[in-house]
Amino acid sequence: MQAYTTLSATFARLGALDDAGGILGWDTQTQMPDGAADTRGEQMAVLKVIAHEILTDPRTSERLDAAEAEAASLGPWERANLREMRRAHVHASAVPGDLVAAASKAATRCEMVWREARADSDFARLRPHLAEVLHLQRLVGEAKGAVLGLSPYDALLDGYDPGMRQARIDPLFSELRAVLPDLVGVVRERQATEAPPLPLPGPFPVSIQRELGLTLMRAAGFDFSRGRLDVSLHPFCGGATDDVRITTRYDEGAVTGALMGVLHETGHALYEQGRPAAWRHQPVGLARGMSLHESQSLLIEMQACRGREFCAYLAPVLREAFSGEGAAWTADNLHRLATRVEPGFIRVDADEVTYPAHVLLRYRLETAMIAGDLAVADLPGAFDAGMKDLLGLTVPSDRLGCLQDIHWPGGSFGYFPTYTLGALAAAQLFAAACTAVPDIRPGLARGDFAPLLGWLRENVHARASLLETDDLLVAATGRPLGTADFLAHLRRRYLGDA
Amino acid sequence: MQAYTTLSATFARLGALDDAGGILGWDTQTQMPDGAADTRGEQMAVLKVIAHEILTDPRTSERLDAAEAEAASLGPWERANLREMRRAHVHASAVPGDLVAAASKAATRCEMVWREARADSDFARLRPHLAEVLHLQRLVGEAKGAVLGLSPYDALLDGYDPGMRQARIDPLFSELRAVLPDLVGVVRERQATEAPPLPLPGPFPVSIQRELGLTLMRAAGFDFSRGRLDVSLHPFCGGATDDVRITTRYDEGAVTGALMGVLHETGHALYEQGRPAAWRHQPVGLARGMSLHESQSLLIEMQACRGREFCAYLAPVLREAFSGEGAAWTADNLHRLATRVEPGFIRVDADEVTYPAHVLLRYRLETAMIAGDLAVADLPGAFDAGMKDLLGLTVPSDRLGCLQDIHWPGGSFGYFPTYTLGALAAAQLFAAACTAVPDIRPGLARGDFAPLLGWLRENVHARASLLETDDLLVAATGRPLGTADFLAHLRRRYLGDA
Repeated sequence: MQAYTTLSATFARLGALDDAGGILGWDTQTQMPDGAADTRGEQMAVLKVIAHEILTDPRTSERLDAAEAEAASLGPWERANLREMRRAHVHASAVPGDLVAAASKAATRCEMVWREARADSDFARLRPHLAEVLHLQRLVGEAKGAVLGLSPYDALLDGYDPGMRQARIDPLFSELRAVLPDLVGVVRERQATEAPPLPLPGPFPVSIQRELGLTLMRAAGFDFSRGRLDVSLHPFCGGATDDVRITTRYDEGAVTGALMGVLHETGHALYEQGRPAAWRHQPVGLARGMSLHESQSLLIEMQACRGREFCAYLAPVLREAFSGEGAAWTADNLHRLATRVEPGFIRVDADEVTYPAHVLLRYRLETAMIAGDLAVADLPGAFDAGMKDLLGLTVPSDRLGCLQDIHWPGGSFGYFPTYTLGALAAAQLFAAACTAVPDIRPGLARGDFAPLLGWLRENVHARASLLETDDLLVAATGRPLGTADFLAHLRRRYLGDA
Repeated sequence: MQAYTTLSATFARLGALDDAGGILGWDTQTQMPDGAADTRGEQMAVLKVIAHEILTDPRTSERLDAAEAEAASLGPWERANLREMRRAHVHASAVPGDLVAAASKAATRCEMVWREARADSDFARLRPHLAEVLHLQRLVGEAKGAVLGLSPYDALLDGYDPGMRQARIDPLFSELRAVLPDLVGVVRERQATEAPPLPLPGPFPVSIQRELGLTLMRAAGFDFSRGRLDVSLHPFCGGATDDVRITTRYDEGAVTGALMGVLHETGHALYEQGRPAAWRHQPVGLARGMSLHESQSLLIEMQACRGREFCAYLAPVLREAFSGEGAAWTADNLHRLATRVEPGFIRVDADEVTYPAHVLLRYRLETAMIAGDLAVADLPGAFDAGMKDLLGLTVPSDRLGCLQDIHWPGGSFGYFPTYTLGALAAAQLFAAACTAVPDIRPGLARGDFAPLLGWLRENVHARASLLETDDLLVAATGRPLGTADFLAHLRRRYLGDA
């Protein structure tokens, strides 16, 4: 036990460093004056370097070996903790320090170039920088893969979604590919036969939007003694253990976007706030990867809050808050606004039916790039061909095409699939929850999330990283991750299937 | 140069850690939800422990020896940097780790007891805890003193105000003791012959107070691209390099308190913002101790902003902001409000003429406690006797007496004198500045701090810790720290002496 106990203390220190970085990261997006960017960059870098030094210290490695040798005497949480410690250690130590530094530097530079290149729709300017980032990420993937016994792409994927593999994703995405384009067409035809939803007439004062957001967060179970709501250019869920901070942005001309954004981030936050206190600051006490994290935000936003039941609760709340009058403020119209399907160029603006197409395309392209089968120079053409293929759209400019996302310039290869894996998991978990707890849907109709949150706490949040993702899904829903519940959900919501 | 260069990198890392802690500290006071207190405590503790480990690492010690051996080849800034590195190293390594932990733990516990004991005016409840804190601080002082060749009190003092010694303070405070009680009496008699100043009639909406504070900060030269103004229960100046954050609190019933508080913290902030960019994150680039820091806040608040010239500028600004009418809004009345003298029980509420009495008393008591000449049990009696002796007041309860300050329960022995040393330095620096730059006073009358700030930048801020405190004062004013300018200032402002 000695080695394990010492490791626990080491990882508690790493957890506290990570939490400190989480608060600084939140501050950077919400509070920091512009002129502090350099010094903040130094603070963040020092915290990261120190954490990396601790994680890759030879003594950490020796203790991991020793603790694993005595693992039989440990309980299940401790063994899972050891497994996550090993994973963190391998990811940190597999890549030589100079490669880490070069990849980080190249990504920072490429991100800066990307901001201008996107504004000017000038892919040529980005190309050499993106090629460099890709080259270095491939080396990172190779280095990690050599230790993990994985392909470079799987090794990168494992950094965002532990245990996820390309061989697991391919059949899931093939099933979606086989169904979704046709489904989008049928849904669009059906929605075209109805009168279009009425836009809610504004303006929507920011102060009222904020109050409303706070009210809905409270209803959903957000604990304000351990979290906050603030404003940032790009909404996110961040902060630290027992200090979960979400952000939104307000547009006085529109309200549903900001509200649904708040509910989305609230889903992430509920996961973070529901992690088990007994394992705070230990790897096993952290959320289980990006797919499950995204499942929690999409479950709250897409499954729960864009459904008929919640719209029935929300409509009169909205109407009263903004003194609305007329047909636009009915529950039915609100639901139709929240479920409008329309293929578009921008991923982050996509509805839940067309969203997977954006992810399938990016997954197809990034696996090819990492495998060396797609050169950066050929990316715009491949992107545009994919948009035609998957959504039937002709991309008018790279700004609306392959330049729209920060992920690749920032060096994040292997992140995109987690959005759609999260959507699948959200549907599967919500279906199981509603079966297990019949009051969940009626609860949403009265603005009461307690029945839903109770199930999520027990079956997802409190488990943290005790189980691998598929094992958690089996424990919670009886099956590993699949597409059936997601597709059934779309057919039910958008085609009225039973 | 090798050892020095390596040390520079080590101390840059320490500086970044310290800055990260500065932002977290600001967040704790201004943003953090209550339920995050424990996890925030862990973050702060981990940052401190890591910094302490780096500072006391045997390799740091070896490199200091090596760098000092080659100091002749270094320039003056590098040599001063090395001096400050050594000081930080000695302070950190002189005290055994278990004593550091015990002292910190006892202080945290004592602070908690103090909050309740003060509320109930119950010294008996505090006594055993304060005795323990005092005992441990005496051990800390002895441990540091043994390495530094100083008495325990001087060793503690050196932690707040490098180079300051009891032997240097005693004659200064004796001079004040000889003059101030009589001076207070004369000023009070004189003010009693005049009609009392008219209170400004409120209410003063918080939003207008905030705008006014921002306007005055901007006028004083605060750089908002590298800093912020926020709200906290206890106003402070904190944050990080290039990210200086001050706070205030608002009372809708009163305005001068919050405004003068903002100007006070702005003085601290200007010092921080004026530190030399070339030495960011190096010890020599830090502000030179608490006395000089306090001199900068008092120079702005007391010397500049409570003076006739600035009141002439401020009166119409205030009148317009709050749509004021009548005699209360004249420059003369405002100046009389800002310079009212009245002995009182509470140090932090004291005017600049009676303030030193509060500090002299605490200095007398804490030096006696550290020397073992005053037992904690005898503190209330000694405190009350001192208040009678120095201010002629009979303390009605310990809440208004020896229980009012957090310093001793928090383990800060040796901090109090810096308030009054700062007041002396403020007067001395302001007098020299006004002599060197004749436009300073006329500038203040038009709300233009540039002439004053220019002199402070060059003579104080940009020097950071290049010079020891007295050497800086000699360079800036021609003399080491003394009482003459402070006393002359009081006689001029309060008795109309030329």
